[in-house]
Amino acid sequence: MPTAVLLLSCPDQPGVVHGVAEFVLGLRGNIVHAEQHIDVESGVFFQRVEFDAPGLTAENLAARFAPIADRFGMTVQAKMSADRPRVAVLASTQPHCLSDLLARWRSGELPAEIGLVVSNHPDHAALAEFHRVPFRHLPVTAETKDEQERALLAALAEHRVDLVVLARYMQILSPRVLSAYDARIINIHHSFLPAFVGARPYHQAQERGVKLIGATAHYATADLDEGPIIAQDVTPVSHRDSVQDMIRKGRDLETVVLARAVRAHVEHRTLVYGNKTIVFG
Amino acid sequence: MPTAVLLLSCPDQPGVVHGVAEFVLGLRGNIVHAEQHIDVESGVFFQRVEFDAPGLTAENLAARFAPIADRFGMTVQAKMSADRPRVAVLASTQPHCLSDLLARWRSGELPAEIGLVVSNHPDHAALAEFHRVPFRHLPVTAETKDEQERALLAALAEHRVDLVVLARYMQILSPRVLSAYDARIINIHHSFLPAFVGARPYHQAQERGVKLIGATAHYATADLDEGPIIAQDVTPVSHRDSVQDMIRKGRDLETVVLARAVRAHVEHRTLVYGNKTIVFG
Amino acid sequence: MPTAVLLLSCPDQPGVVHGVAEFVLGLRGNIVHAEQHIDVESGVFFQRVEFDAPGLTAENLAARFAPIADRFGMTVQAKMSADRPRVAVLASTQPHCLSDLLARWRSGELPAEIGLVVSNHPDHAALAEFHRVPFRHLPVTAETKDEQERALLAALAEHRVDLVVLARYMQILSPRVLSAYDARIINIHHSFLPAFVGARPYHQAQERGVKLIGATAHYATADLDEGPIIAQDVTPVSHRDSVQDMIRKGRDLETVVLARAVRAHVEHRTLVYGNKTIVFG
Amino acid sequence: MPTAVLLLSCPDQPGVVHGVAEFVLGLRGNIVHAEQHIDVESGVFFQRVEFDAPGLTAENLAARFAPIADRFGMTVQAKMSADRPRVAVLASTQPHCLSDLLARWRSGELPAEIGLVVSNHPDHAALAEFHRVPFRHLPVTAETKDEQERALLAALAEHRVDLVVLARYMQILSPRVLSAYDARIINIHHSFLPAFVGARPYHQAQERGVKLIGATAHYATADLDEGPIIAQDVTPVSHRDSVQDMIRKGRDLETVVLARAVRAHVEHRTLVYGNKTIVFG
Repeated sequence: MPTAVLLLSCPDQPGVVHGVAEFVLGLRGNIVHAEQHIDVESGVFFQRVEFDAPGLTAENLAARFAPIADRFGMTVQAKMSADRPRVAVLASTQPHCLSDLLARWRSGELPAEIGLVVSNHPDHAALAEFHRVPFRHLPVTAETKDEQERALLAALAEHRVDLVVLARYMQILSPRVLSAYDARIINIHHSFLPAFVGARPYHQAQERGVKLIGATAHYATADLDEGPIIAQDVTPVSHRDSVQDMIRKGRDLETVVLARAVRAHVEHRTLVYGNKTIVFG
Repeated sequence: MPTAVLLLSCPDQPGVVHGVAEFVLGLRGNIVHAEQHIDVESGVFFQRVEFDAPGLTAENLAARFAPIADRFGMTVQAKMSADRPRVAVLASTQPHCLSDLLARWRSGELPAEIGLVVSNHPDHAALAEFHRVPFRHLPVTAETKDEQERALLAALAEHRVDLVVLARYMQILSPRVLSAYDARIINIHHSFLPAFVGARPYHQAQERGVKLIGATAHYATADLDEGPIIAQDVTPVSHRDSVQDMIRKGRDLETVVLARAVRAHVEHRTLVYGNKTIVFG
Repeated sequence: MPTAVLLLSCPDQPGVVHGVAEFVLGLRGNIVHAEQHIDVESGVFFQRVEFDAPGLTAENLAARFAPIADRFGMTVQAKMSADRPRVAVLASTQPHCLSDLLARWRSGELPAEIGLVVSNHPDHAALAEFHRVPFRHLPVTAETKDEQERALLAALAEHRVDLVVLARYMQILSPRVLSAYDARIINIHHSFLPAFVGARPYHQAQERGVKLIGATAHYATADLDEGPIIAQDVTPVSHRDSVQDMIRKGRDLETVVLARAVRAHVEHRTLVYGNKTIVFG
Repeated sequence: MPTAVLLLSCPDQPGVVHGVAEFVLGLRGNIVHAEQHIDVESGVFFQRVEFDAPGLTAENLAARFAPIADRFGMTVQAKMSADRPRVAVLASTQPHCLSDLLARWRSGELPAEIGLVVSNHPDHAALAEFHRVPFRHLPVTAETKDEQERALLAALAEHRVDLVVLARYMQILSPRVLSAYDARIINIHHSFLPAFVGARPYHQAQERGVKLIGATAHYATADLDEGPIIAQDVTPVSHRDSVQDMIRKGRDLETVVLARAVRAHVEHRTLVYGNKTIVFG
C-alpha cells in the first residue's frame, strides 16, 4: 500500500507528538512507522512519521499539514512513497559502485528510478545500455570544467533528477552544482572519515599502518570530505595487505556503504541538521 | 530527570498513537523517546513511550492509564526510571560474566541494583564481598535439587529480586522457578542459537568447523535454549583455533552479549511476545 | 611474477618444514608466502608454500617434488598461479551472486576464468552475454533430472571446468555430479550453518526471532548443508525486519561470502580435511 | 610444553627460511607455528618461528642462533614461552581497562605476570589488593612531574617490569620514560586513529556526526597518538547517542582492544618496524 511520509523538525515542546498524531487520525490514516529524536543540547525535536492515507499527494499533504507546521514552527518535508525519486549516478572509470547500484535498482531493491548515468569517461556506456538507462558522456578538462558543469546541470534538469549519486566520480563539483542540489548529492569517500581526508586514502592508510580500513557516504558540501555523514563501515586489514589489497577490500565497503546511504535517502529516512545526518531506522 | 516508561501492546487500530500522546499531554508530560512496532502478520501494535512527568509513581501511572488501556484492549507495563530493578546474579565456577556485571554496576552503567549473588560453588564469595553484595552459597546435587531451589526462591524473595541473571550458571532450573520469574530470567548460552543447542557448544563448533562462534542471551523458559532471544553476537574463528581458544574468545562474547541483554531489560526496553523479544532502541 | 603453490599435508614430524624449504632453495626459488598448521589432535601437518621459481609448470613441479612427498608421506597439490582455474557458475532465477561474480571477474579481481554460466531458467542469458560468457539453459523437472545432469556434466567437461560455483542454484545435485567434482563445488547457503538447514532459512530465522542472520559458503557434499565450511558472515536484524527485509539484507551477505570462498579456492588457499576446510590467510 | 620463539627480520634473500628450519632441526626441535611476511617495497623479510626444543633458555637460544643471524644480517629477539613477561599497569581514575586486565590475568588468559599497578590517584588500591598485586600511588602535578617520573622509573626497575600498559593513564610520559621502554609501552587511545587525535575524542566524534566510534592500541612514542598501531576496533553509533553513550560504548571497545594488544605482545607476536606493527596470527 502506498504511504505518506512526514519529515519534521521544530523546537521541542509539549504537544508535538499529539498534534501530529491528531492530524493523521483526522485523515483517517494509520501510522505504520514513527520515530522521533530530541537533540537535547539544541532543544530541537525531529520526527519521521509514515502512515497510510488513501487519496493523498505530496502537494495536498503539505497543504493540509501547513496549519500544524505553523502552530509548532516546523520545517516539513512531505513525501509519498509512490513518488519514486529520480536518481542520476555519476561515475569516472571505476565501475563497482555504479554497477552495484544498477543491479540493486533492477532487482527492485531501491524505491527509486535511476534515470541517468553520467561519466567523464566513455567506459560505462555499455553497462548503462544493458540496464536501459540513458548514458551521457561529459568529458572534462581544467579548461572545459565550467562548460561541462553547465551541460551536467542541463542533463540533470532535463531528466528531472532529485538525487545525484557520486559513485566514485573523481571530479570536484563547483559550488554552483552543490547549491543547486543541496543535501541531494551523496558522495562515497574511500576512508573512515575524518581519517584520511583528501587523495589516495588507501595509500595513507597503508602508510599509517592501521588495522581497519573504512568507507564513508556523506552529503557533498563545499567543504570537501566534511559534509554530513550518512553511513560508514570498516573491514579489517593487516600488515599483509598491500595498497592493492586495500583497494580491493575497499571496493566491497564502498559499494555497500554507498548503497545503504542511497537507500536511506530514497526511503525518506534522512534528515540533515547542521553538519550531521539523522538516519531514521 | 526521572522519567516514566509505558510498554504497550494491543490490536493495531487507528488512534492508538494519538490516544497515548493525548494521555501524556494530559499529564503535562513531554515525550523524550517513543518507538512503535507493528507486527504485520498478527496485526499487533507495540509501543514504548518514555516521558518526563513529575509526581508520578509506577502505581498511580498504571491507575491513570487504565482507561486508555481499556479503550484499546492494551497489555501495559508501567515503570519509573527511578525505580531501579533489583537483580540477582547466579553463577557456577566461571567468574567472567559475574565479574563483568558487577564492574558495570559499580561504574554506574547499569540502572539497577545488584542485590544478591548466588552460586552452587563457594568460589565467588570474595568477589561478591569486594563489591559489597550479599553472597549465598547454595550447593546442589541431584538429591538436594528440590531443596536447593526452595532455598533459592526464598533468597530471591527475601531480597525482593525483580530480575534473575544466569551468568554461566550450569544448573537447569525447574519449571517452578521459571514460572515464578516468567520473562524475568535471562540466560547466556555460549553459542549462536539455534546452532549448537545443549552441552559443550564450543566443542560442537570446533567439530563442525564453523568460521564464526557466537553467544546468545535469552529469557529462560522450560524449553531449554529455546526461549525468546534478546541479544546475539559472533566473532571470527579459524582452523587455528582449538576448543580452548574458542572458549577464551567466547568469554568476551558472553560477557558483552549478556551485559547488553541485562541493560536492555533494566532500562525497560524489552517486550516478550510469543517466543520473540522486541528490543526497543 | 608467476608463482608456484604447494598445498601439503602429512603426519607431523621433525624436518618437514626444512625439507620443503630445501626443495625450494634447490630450485633457486624464493618463498613469498608460507603458512603452516598442525592439527594437534590428529597429529597432521598442513602447509601452503608459495614461491617464485621461473621455468616451472604444475606438472614438472609435482614430478620434482615427488621424492620429498614420498619421504614424508605427503598428499600434495601443485599449482601455478599463471594457470587460472576455469569456473562454471550455476544459478536459478536470482541474479545477485552470479552478477557479482561476473563483475568481480571482469574487474580482474578473481584470478580465474569464468568460462560458463548454466541455469535451469532462461533469465540470465543477457547478463552472461553482456559479460561475453557462454550461457547454457538446462531446464529441469523431476522427470528430466537425470538427463539434465548428463547434459550438465557434458557442458562442464566441454568447457574443461575446474570449479563449479552454485550461485543460488536451487537444485540438489546428485552424487554422480558431486563425486565428479569432489571438493570442487562451492555452494552458498543462506543461513549461518548449522542453524537453519534446509529450505527457507530466512523464514526460519524470522520465526525463531534471531538477532543476526548469516550466510555460509561450503563445499557441496552428499550430506546437504553439511559440507566443509569455507566462509561465513552475519549481519544484525531486529524485530522490525520482515522476512522480505531479511531476504534483502541476506543478499548482500550471500554475495560477499560466496565471493570470499571462491576467491580463496581459486587462489589455492583452501585445503579440505575430514569435514573441515583450512583456509590459509 | 614450553616453546621457544624467534622474532626475526633481515633483508629478503633466498635461503632464509631454509636456514632457520635447519637451525631448528639441528636442535631436534619441532616447529609448531611459523609465519613470515615480506615487505615488498622495502625488501625486508620478517618471521616468527615457534618450536619446542627442550633444554633451551632465552640466553643460550640467542647465543646458538647468532651464527645464522650473522649470516643473514638478522635482527633477532629470542624468547621462551615459560619466561612470562612482567607487566606494570598504569591507570588514572577510570577502572575498566585495569579491572579487565587483572581479571584476564587472574583467569590465566594472559601468559604474563602483572607485578605492579601504578596510579596518580589512590582509587584503585582496593582493586589491586583484591588481586594481590602491589599498588603504588604516585600523584603528579605540573611541578612534581619530573620527580614523579623518577619514582615511576624506580618502581618499574624494582619490579623488573618488561611491559608498561597505559590503561587510560591520563598523563603524558616524557621522552626519558618512553626511551627507557621503547616499543614496550602500550597505550589505549579512545578513537579510531588517526581520526580524533588529542583530547576528548568522543566529544569530537559526536560533534562530527560519525556513525562508528573506535579504539586504538598502539606503542607509545614521543609523537603523541602517532605510535605503531597494534589493534583497532569500532562499534556503531547513531544520532541517538549522546557523548555519554559514546563514552559508555567506548569503554567496551577500549578494554577489548587493549587486552588484544597486550595479549599479542606478551605472546611475542608483535614486531615493530618503522612506524608500523606486524602482528603475527
